[in-house]
Amino acid sequence: MVTEDEAMRRAIALASRGLGTTSPNPVVGCLLLSASGEVVGEGFHVYAGGPHAEIVALAQAGELARGGTCVVSLEPCNHTGRTGPCSEALITAGVRRVVIAVDDPNPVASGGAATMRAAGIEVTTGVRREEAELGNVAWLTAVRRGRPYVTWKFAATLDGRSAAADGTSQWISSAESRADVHVLRSTVDAIVAGVGTVVADDPQLTVRDLRDGTLAIKQPLRVVVDSSGRTPENARVRDAAAPTWIVTAAAAGSGPAGRVDLSRMLTELYARDVRNVLLEGGPTLAGAFLDAGLVDRVIGYIAPKLLGDGRAALIDASIGTIADAVELEFTEITQIGGDLRFTALLRQKESLSMPQQKES
Amino acid sequence: MVTEDEAMRRAIALASRGLGTTSPNPVVGCLLLSASGEVVGEGFHVYAGGPHAEIVALAQAGELARGGTCVVSLEPCNHTGRTGPCSEALITAGVRRVVIAVDDPNPVASGGAATMRAAGIEVTTGVRREEAELGNVAWLTAVRRGRPYVTWKFAATLDGRSAAADGTSQWISSAESRADVHVLRSTVDAIVAGVGTVVADDPQLTVRDLRDGTLAIKQPLRVVVDSSGRTPENARVRDAAAPTWIVTAAAAGSGPAGRVDLSRMLTELYARDVRNVLLEGGPTLAGAFLDAGLVDRVIGYIAPKLLGDGRAALIDASIGTIADAVELEFTEITQIGGDLRFTALLRQKESLSMPQQKES
Ligand SMILES: NC(=O)c1ccc[n+]([C@@H]2O[C@H](COP(=O)([O-])OP(=O)(O)OC[C@H]3O[C@@H](n4cnc5c(N)ncnc54)[C@H](OP(=O)(O)O)[C@@H]3O)[C@@H](O)[C@H]2O)c1
Ligand SMILES: NC(=O)c1ccc[n+]([C@@H]2O[C@H](COP(=O)([O-])OP(=O)(O)OC[C@H]3O[C@@H](n4cnc5c(N)ncnc54)[C@H](OP(=O)(O)O)[C@@H]3O)[C@@H](O)[C@H]2O)c1
Repeated sequence: MVTEDEAMRRAIALASRGLGTTSPNPVVGCLLLSASGEVVGEGFHVYAGGPHAEIVALAQAGELARGGTCVVSLEPCNHTGRTGPCSEALITAGVRRVVIAVDDPNPVASGGAATMRAAGIEVTTGVRREEAELGNVAWLTAVRRGRPYVTWKFAATLDGRSAAADGTSQWISSAESRADVHVLRSTVDAIVAGVGTVVADDPQLTVRDLRDGTLAIKQPLRVVVDSSGRTPENARVRDAAAPTWIVTAAAAGSGPAGRVDLSRMLTELYARDVRNVLLEGGPTLAGAFLDAGLVDRVIGYIAPKLLGDGRAALIDASIGTIADAVELEFTEITQIGGDLRFTALLRQKESLSMPQQKES
Repeated sequence: MVTEDEAMRRAIALASRGLGTTSPNPVVGCLLLSASGEVVGEGFHVYAGGPHAEIVALAQAGELARGGTCVVSLEPCNHTGRTGPCSEALITAGVRRVVIAVDDPNPVASGGAATMRAAGIEVTTGVRREEAELGNVAWLTAVRRGRPYVTWKFAATLDGRSAAADGTSQWISSAESRADVHVLRSTVDAIVAGVGTVVADDPQLTVRDLRDGTLAIKQPLRVVVDSSGRTPENARVRDAAAPTWIVTAAAAGSGPAGRVDLSRMLTELYARDVRNVLLEGGPTLAGAFLDAGLVDRVIGYIAPKLLGDGRAALIDASIGTIADAVELEFTEITQIGGDLRFTALLRQKESLSMPQQKES
């Protein structure tokens, strides 16, 4: 016997196991409770094209789903995509009640709750909604905005330097922080860097084991923002380890100063099924993203070092006075190795706006 | 009945209540246990010239001290200063056993343990030593070095800016952080600022209640580092709220570029009974302090804001490459209001070296 609330907590935890592999789909977790309240099935969405969480849980539950309750972190889909609509599957299975955390904001897929209600199922939405929204924040924000969720990641000293006066920057952050970045990379669909960084540091921008260099099976798309196509032919970012898109102004359209139109670039990435982007700099490109209002989240690795000179972690964001500073809110502060890692969300009204909650 | 270890924990906690008022003396806490192990007296050193912790505890215990144990966070003094030697007082009171956390590194006052042993008292040292050292770190470091313990405090954005491009900086940090700075000021003997900050911001550099401006009873010495004496006549730092020392190169001697010799300035402050200094900037003076190896601790208030331009929190520290970065270690990371506050200690071999522990 579990309560519906406990079941939802478990469904949200299950959902998170799909982070990084479900794009362009959201992460979803599902529990099926029998008529007597026992857990008889559970599942999560593992990868796009694979079965939805509800279908996995229904397959486990079999006849025990009849008269039971489905507890699911996102509104069951209503459309026939790579799999049939989950709403129909739940109706067919004879489920009596469906408990949903978050409504599906995707116009193509939504309507599942209405379909099920019309078939006589009791539907409740909004259970542990905030928690489930957080677990799906990248996907939800992306779908609502029609562009990927953007996390800007940087490493700096206590005094905000990302390189010393002579340009050296290896390593500002600890080995543990650098390993943590690879975990972060494994949760996104694309890694974006400016051509300045590619020319200066020749990074590979892959997800790999830092001890032996082994590449992860799934690699995010590598994106180089390079107005005039000056990425060197032998740059590591062009190797065979992962797909790469060198974005020129010719390809994506040009914005101010003839440089790549970042907003159009993100729209194009969205069209290519990218929902979650990690912006890895450098300072010029990060400034341009912030200036254009295209950053949702910032993750900083702050090393306990002081330089007093050298390149700043962020430049050219077109902010002249303290009242115009970009305001954020810390959501997590932790220690990684000897470093401090913070996560902060941009304070934008839109990023907090949620769709209306449906009546149950 | 308390154990000696519990008693020492309490003694160390008591000691900390003297922080900010005991200079040039250390903070000290003391418990007296009767022969049967009951607490019969306790005390801490409140202000220089006031009774030592042991004397307060002995006065409370009276005859119950005879045959008992004295548990004290610092080796009892052996010299006749403004009060008589505590070692003699403990001998006279008939204490059987003395438990000490930290040996007194002060050559004038040390020798208490030896005196008491010679009188037949059982003396143990090193109980909860690290914890007690931490509680007295400013005073211990100052005495060992012959110059005050220096904490550099700064406020900055996530990208290390302490002012925007147009010079505005009010307010980078939250009201809670600013109030916290006044608590920090109340624990030091002197507040040091560069003439650049005095000219730019005209700070008062006092300890006060930020809601109504009420001044604290005890005010640290205000120190302005001002090679050529260009602090304006009507600067707030010259008001009657607290004592002020405008340090010119003529007064303290000159170092590189004819500027104030910072090391000599600190030696002079030590001679004036200053043990604990708060360096409040600006970035130029902080760079010079770091360059001269004169900073022991850094406290940063990091606001969740981004500027991408403006004055850096630290400049001119003569560091050219990443391998020469000043290395620190975080000892505390916390949130104050919406800001992050970190405390970090400079990683210097000397700052960690402790005097040999005496045999018991
Ligand atoms: N500490 C860290 O976390 C970190 C991370 C990354 C990099 N870094 C350091 O940052 C340095 C490189 O940074 P950087 O600032 O020189 O280069 P960058 O930010 O990596 O790249 C900037 C370049 O991107 C191109 N670009 C194209 N469209 C743009 C647009 N709309 N807005 C802005 N830029 C656009 C521009 O070159 P075109 O005009 O030619 O297209 C521009 O010069 C390296 O030294 C690297 O070590 C540090
Ligand atoms: N965010 C924060 O935490 C914070 C804190 C304080 C200040 N600030 C900002 O910092 C700015 C002022 O900083 P600043 O860098 O211009 O000035 P500063 O660091 O306050 O003062 C530097 C001046 O101190 C004098 N000085 C004397 N002896 C020196 C020595 N040995 N080494 C270095 N300097 C010595 C020099 O002037 P002379 O050669 O004339 O003596 C030098 O120009 C203001 O805008 C203020 O708002 C920010």
